[in-house]
Amino acid sequence: MVEAKLGTGQHLLGLRGMSAEEITSILDRAAYWENYPEKVAKVLNGKFVANLFFENSTRTRTSFEIAEKRLGTEVINFSAAESSVQKGESIYDTVRTVESMGIDAAVIRLKPIGLLAEMANKIKVPLINAGDGNNEHPTQALLDLYTMRKHFGHIKGLTVSIVGDIQHSRVARSNLWALQAMGAQVRLCAPENMRAKELEAFAPYVTIEEALRSDVVMMLRVQLERHDQGMIRSAEEYRAQYGMTVERAAKMAPHAIIMHPAPVNRNVEIDDELVEHPKSHIFAQMSHGVPIRMAVVERALHN
Amino acid sequence: MVEAKLGTGQHLLGLRGMSAEEITSILDRAAYWENYPEKVAKVLNGKFVANLFFENSTRTRTSFEIAEKRLGTEVINFSAAESSVQKGESIYDTVRTVESMGIDAAVIRLKPIGLLAEMANKIKVPLINAGDGNNEHPTQALLDLYTMRKHFGHIKGLTVSIVGDIQHSRVARSNLWALQAMGAQVRLCAPENMRAKELEAFAPYVTIEEALRSDVVMMLRVQLERHDQGMIRSAEEYRAQYGMTVERAAKMAPHAIIMHPAPVNRNVEIDDELVEHPKSHIFAQMSHGVPIRMAVVERALHN
Amino acid sequence: MVEAKLGTGQHLLGLRGMSAEEITSILDRAAYWENYPEKVAKVLNGKFVANLFFENSTRTRTSFEIAEKRLGTEVINFSAAESSVQKGESIYDTVRTVESMGIDAAVIRLKPIGLLAEMANKIKVPLINAGDGNNEHPTQALLDLYTMRKHFGHIKGLTVSIVGDIQHSRVARSNLWALQAMGAQVRLCAPENMRAKELEAFAPYVTIEEALRSDVVMMLRVQLERHDQGMIRSAEEYRAQYGMTVERAAKMAPHAIIMHPAPVNRNVEIDDELVEHPKSHIFAQMSHGVPIRMAVVERALHN
Repeated sequence: MVEAKLGTGQHLLGLRGMSAEEITSILDRAAYWENYPEKVAKVLNGKFVANLFFENSTRTRTSFEIAEKRLGTEVINFSAAESSVQKGESIYDTVRTVESMGIDAAVIRLKPIGLLAEMANKIKVPLINAGDGNNEHPTQALLDLYTMRKHFGHIKGLTVSIVGDIQHSRVARSNLWALQAMGAQVRLCAPENMRAKELEAFAPYVTIEEALRSDVVMMLRVQLERHDQGMIRSAEEYRAQYGMTVERAAKMAPHAIIMHPAPVNRNVEIDDELVEHPKSHIFAQMSHGVPIRMAVVERALHN
Repeated sequence: MVEAKLGTGQHLLGLRGMSAEEITSILDRAAYWENYPEKVAKVLNGKFVANLFFENSTRTRTSFEIAEKRLGTEVINFSAAESSVQKGESIYDTVRTVESMGIDAAVIRLKPIGLLAEMANKIKVPLINAGDGNNEHPTQALLDLYTMRKHFGHIKGLTVSIVGDIQHSRVARSNLWALQAMGAQVRLCAPENMRAKELEAFAPYVTIEEALRSDVVMMLRVQLERHDQGMIRSAEEYRAQYGMTVERAAKMAPHAIIMHPAPVNRNVEIDDELVEHPKSHIFAQMSHGVPIRMAVVERALHN
Repeated sequence: MVEAKLGTGQHLLGLRGMSAEEITSILDRAAYWENYPEKVAKVLNGKFVANLFFENSTRTRTSFEIAEKRLGTEVINFSAAESSVQKGESIYDTVRTVESMGIDAAVIRLKPIGLLAEMANKIKVPLINAGDGNNEHPTQALLDLYTMRKHFGHIKGLTVSIVGDIQHSRVARSNLWALQAMGAQVRLCAPENMRAKELEAFAPYVTIEEALRSDVVMMLRVQLERHDQGMIRSAEEYRAQYGMTVERAAKMAPHAIIMHPAPVNRNVEIDDELVEHPKSHIFAQMSHGVPIRMAVVERALHN
């Protein structure tokens, strides 16, 4: 194991504009942690990290919590459901509050876009974005890149198609920026009403048939309730037009893989039989989330 | 203190079919932990245990959490109220997810019966049943047996009557299987509409008067809202016909004891004055839950 | 750093009747902890503290949790939202339950007044009041006094005006008792329908103009929904009559400070521009909550 070098303690607000070198250093450090012999490293003993989730999330919060505890930090969990944010307190005041209480870093999920960057100018402790609106979800994209690099040995030159509700997807955006920085070719695939017009300048929209001819086909979670006026009227229709069905998976190249950020709507975005299929890397992605988040939390707290 | 021998790392799905020898080894190990001089033993330092509660429970979750922390494990709490299970994610996917994230054992409470056994075939980490529908609640029964053995010095030969909503009770079932394996004589007592027909082959239904002539009278929590068509129309009526009233308690033998898995509906299943009466072992039961769960978690994680 | 002397392990139910000497010893110990070189002291390693919140609170619970973890205790969090208290279980039974499970101290927030004192006679572990109805919130007042003493060097002789919904405020009451014990002069200021008549015997009600001529002006959080029949019909009206506006702040003496227990309703009790103004000590108060609670938890667990 080689100890990858880390930058100084810093925010992680998004991947847009992050260099290939910096992304690579995070992936390298995650590889170090994935292979670390002891489950608990305790290198950050005595530090306090707050997980502030103004939107519910079990998966991401749990992944961060395991990462933090493996590093030896004390963990303070906060979810909006039980909080005075419901009483009108602003998100900013909450973050300032836990900062005042002496935490060393905050992992934050929230709806409003732009608020994280604004807070980062006023808050002295490093902030880690755990998903902000449809803007970015940097640790998800980093674990996705980690999964691709581990499988293919490299990211440069890969063709990656992202399929589904691009418009509402922070996962799509973070992957787009990071994959392009690393030299991959990104393509988008979505029904008309799920497209993000502003991304057309960065990546082409392709048909589902074209998307299948990629090294990686990344399916996004679809929430049909968001699209009541759309062209897709039911889960069945979505599956028929954009789902990763057994038939479509059979058309993919032997070396190509299926990814999904989870949680999966089985038999909507992806057929039940494919979720744990050898082509699918969904649970590997989740597994990689922990070392990625260890690297990110460590980077935030590094002096 | 004698260190009881433990089996190898394994699931605890239920007590049906568990041998007297195995039950005894868990009770012995719990006795070891009850008398352990330090509050925190740290024998499982560096292990991660996830408490996955798809049904809310404060008491059982807290008892497991204290047990786990006394053993030194890192604890990941998850309750369905805040989870994406509400978004339709299956319980299986959640358990697979935390397994992928590197936890070493999962304590699970859930409604669907049969799902735990199904998951145990696919999940590699040991699963501990913290209550599944009306099927089993093995750690509750183990702490009940522990309480009886501690009080009487033995379980073999005891007469135990279980009174109340047998039909919906996983506590009744787990106690039935374990008590019979240990050589106790079990009797059931319930109004017609709260009986479980399928248990008649294993234990007789008796009147409340007969039930009082037992070494142990175990009252179950009743949820009258489940029985709107029943013969019992009110809490007062239930108390009058099946409650452990002060008058009924006076008819019990001097050596006989009252038990209840809690939480108690005071003045329904049991009169207020009896909850902390010398005949009642309710808070002792709760106290024994911690060493029992230490033994069970340790058994699950043992190599 | 001087190690302040501590009393023996004991409850903290309220500040009414507490001597200046005892209050001072807690403030001194908090000062010790504020300056403690390591973030985690671990002096209470192996102890278990339960945070039992029968009313939701993020801020206070988080502050206690950080304090407990800095002291090295194991922390068990419990909030009523996820608990069987909703099933009718009494608060007493819950506290007795966690006591039975072996916790060493309980931090409790609850609505019913008088219940804490009642429980303290039956429960063997020390209880710490984290807010009970409109009765007391002792750790909040202690951190307020700590903030004043740190700023002014002393409490004796200060004039402190408490402005707002006195009737519903446990913060006002705890501050009143403690400030008077320490030799400060307390004045109250509230619209007619937010006054507590029973406090008139202890402190005079003054106008907002008079209140501004104090060393400390402590604004309380107002919840207008509690006062639908009142003289104040809107947030704008409240601000106009009782809010700490920029204009009113300008009338305060140069040395005088603004305090607020938070969370703040910005532009209701206090103008947005004033929240982080040099005269305002709101985030300093939050910061002081952690060492105060360390002192209080340590006092409870001290032998």
